[in-house]
Amino acid sequence: MHPILSISRRTRRTPFTEKNKAHGVSGYTVYNRMLLPTVFESIEADYHHLKEHVQVWDVSCQRQIEVTGPDAAELIQMLTPRNLAKMKDDQCYYLPVVDRNGGLLNDPVTVKHSADRWWISIADSDLMLWIKGLATGRDMNVDIFEPDVSPLAVQGPKSNALMARMFGEDIVNLKFFRHRKVKFMDTEFTVARSGFSVQGGFEIYVEGTQYAEPLWDALFDAGQNLNVRAGCPNLIERIEGGLLSYGNDMTLENTPYEAGLGRFCKGAAADGCIGADVLKLELENGPKQQIRGLKISGKPLPSSPTPWPITINGARVGQVTSAAWSPDLQMNIGLGMVNAAHWEVGSEVTVETETHGARTATLCGLPFV
Amino acid sequence: MHPILSISRRTRRTPFTEKNKAHGVSGYTVYNRMLLPTVFESIEADYHHLKEHVQVWDVSCQRQIEVTGPDAAELIQMLTPRNLAKMKDDQCYYLPVVDRNGGLLNDPVTVKHSADRWWISIADSDLMLWIKGLATGRDMNVDIFEPDVSPLAVQGPKSNALMARMFGEDIVNLKFFRHRKVKFMDTEFTVARSGFSVQGGFEIYVEGTQYAEPLWDALFDAGQNLNVRAGCPNLIERIEGGLLSYGNDMTLENTPYEAGLGRFCKGAAADGCIGADVLKLELENGPKQQIRGLKISGKPLPSSPTPWPITINGARVGQVTSAAWSPDLQMNIGLGMVNAAHWEVGSEVTVETETHGARTATLCGLPFV
Repeated sequence: MHPILSISRRTRRTPFTEKNKAHGVSGYTVYNRMLLPTVFESIEADYHHLKEHVQVWDVSCQRQIEVTGPDAAELIQMLTPRNLAKMKDDQCYYLPVVDRNGGLLNDPVTVKHSADRWWISIADSDLMLWIKGLATGRDMNVDIFEPDVSPLAVQGPKSNALMARMFGEDIVNLKFFRHRKVKFMDTEFTVARSGFSVQGGFEIYVEGTQYAEPLWDALFDAGQNLNVRAGCPNLIERIEGGLLSYGNDMTLENTPYEAGLGRFCKGAAADGCIGADVLKLELENGPKQQIRGLKISGKPLPSSPTPWPITINGARVGQVTSAAWSPDLQMNIGLGMVNAAHWEVGSEVTVETETHGARTATLCGLPFV
Repeated sequence: MHPILSISRRTRRTPFTEKNKAHGVSGYTVYNRMLLPTVFESIEADYHHLKEHVQVWDVSCQRQIEVTGPDAAELIQMLTPRNLAKMKDDQCYYLPVVDRNGGLLNDPVTVKHSADRWWISIADSDLMLWIKGLATGRDMNVDIFEPDVSPLAVQGPKSNALMARMFGEDIVNLKFFRHRKVKFMDTEFTVARSGFSVQGGFEIYVEGTQYAEPLWDALFDAGQNLNVRAGCPNLIERIEGGLLSYGNDMTLENTPYEAGLGRFCKGAAADGCIGADVLKLELENGPKQQIRGLKISGKPLPSSPTPWPITINGARVGQVTSAAWSPDLQMNIGLGMVNAAHWEVGSEVTVETETHGARTATLCGLPFV
């Protein structure tokens, strides 16, 4: 019943695609017009392994947008309500990026190399086109391009051990959302403590396609007795951890406040980012809806390709956008937007699944674990 | 050996997805973050049927960008080197859209409703972000959004017959790349004579998700004895017809001249579109490479997910970006970019396939048929 994916040049392969195949990838999605593995053994087996050991993830689809030039810092600050004034040259920031209506265009992690050189590690939308459009419209002095950089994530509780074997013990002192250079063969890579799981880990920004397979092999050689495995962002683990997926849990139709990202919007008005006026108004009036966790009763539910309505007494009050059965919590957990009048944590609601009927659910805060 | 596609809200379903399933879709790609069928029976069987009968294609992934407001016409002209001065309110134009380096951002078909209301029917990139960025950067007075419009194509030699049964005989008088309104139930749709095949046909811009399944059913009811079938853009047929696929045959790295779209770039400098200065220089100096057809010798080749190098005496002079075995031409045909020094039609080159070794090939003009 699972549909086949037709692959062409347009659905780009990555420098690690052959390695994923050799390690038994069994499902893909297309993310930023590039292949992203979704399953190796099974989503549940991958989940248990991720929470116990260490995995190597091909997240090349987190494409980098490089912004360089004298106007780079000014341009980056225009993109986001987050205040960048104190950002250091070895920091990564999670940045809500909004249009002039305050709608989310993307939620990238931005890597600052210096005031005039940045990487924006994007979620699933062609954010480069927005940045190019703005820079062109304002005649700004910047270069904007996609460099030959393919992130490889090392995630899981044994990630410190594996990275220390690869790059020396001092790498474990790297703080959360900080980055530094590590040497590999005749080059060096930027490495950050970050990644789309809550198990801890690193992202290696592999610059130069020719280094991708040697790095992959070196990680697997070094990690043999750590039970290292190929993996990918895991649906169950990321819902447990309350990690939002752009395009799934929030879209251009949502503001950062709706997505629960208000803490990243301080200084919007002061710094005059695009959309600041709209966001300031929303901060005063409160958002119309907001993301919540849902504990959904009953037996395991499948994930759904379309949102499930959330209702109270038959009236629609929101929708579930991601859901999965959590083996560790022994319950169905979900993420969804709920209208302001009904979003109180602890409220009972009904979730109208597509194939498994109506289920009672309780709203909760995030993360689940 | 075919990989499974994991579908989530992010890889959007269309208003016709359930109908595609019911009609036996067997392969998908993801196009503009939306499902696009690639195969029903087989690419060859689909091809023979398309060239003989009539097919209904779910091309919802050709998302519309609606641009409305007093500055709409000025903004649209900024996007493209094609001169829009004489474009009528019932015309569609194929538009190369370029950035300030002259690189192709998309190659949409633009539907003009009036000077202050346009639809841009996009190929596979988030062109809306470029347009929003430009409009925001220049503080232009326009609204830019994705309306609830899902194109359904009716393609094949019997498309006139089917459309006449649906909407009356006069529809066959609609000229190429012109559009008009047709009535359906309690609404009306914009219909254009256009589509991504060279078999002739129409695209129905289905406005309102609720009308999608009724329209689909009505087309199949009306077309029973025309052997109507569900279909999709066909790899073989579109290569035969010389139809380029953005992301496959040309990318941001290519200019319109390289993609053989020079005839759509008249007036670039005069109209002051973004990138006009770069395009003007290239028009004077000639492009560095250009798209060519290739007749590739030997037994049927599979399509390739990565470009095949084109070489002469071992030196790389270009690459094949799309290829297929043509049952009607009884040869392998391909599209590729070839460097200026070697692009003469009739030249013999070598194509280095990934899995089937080196093949001799001859450069040719387009289309093949």
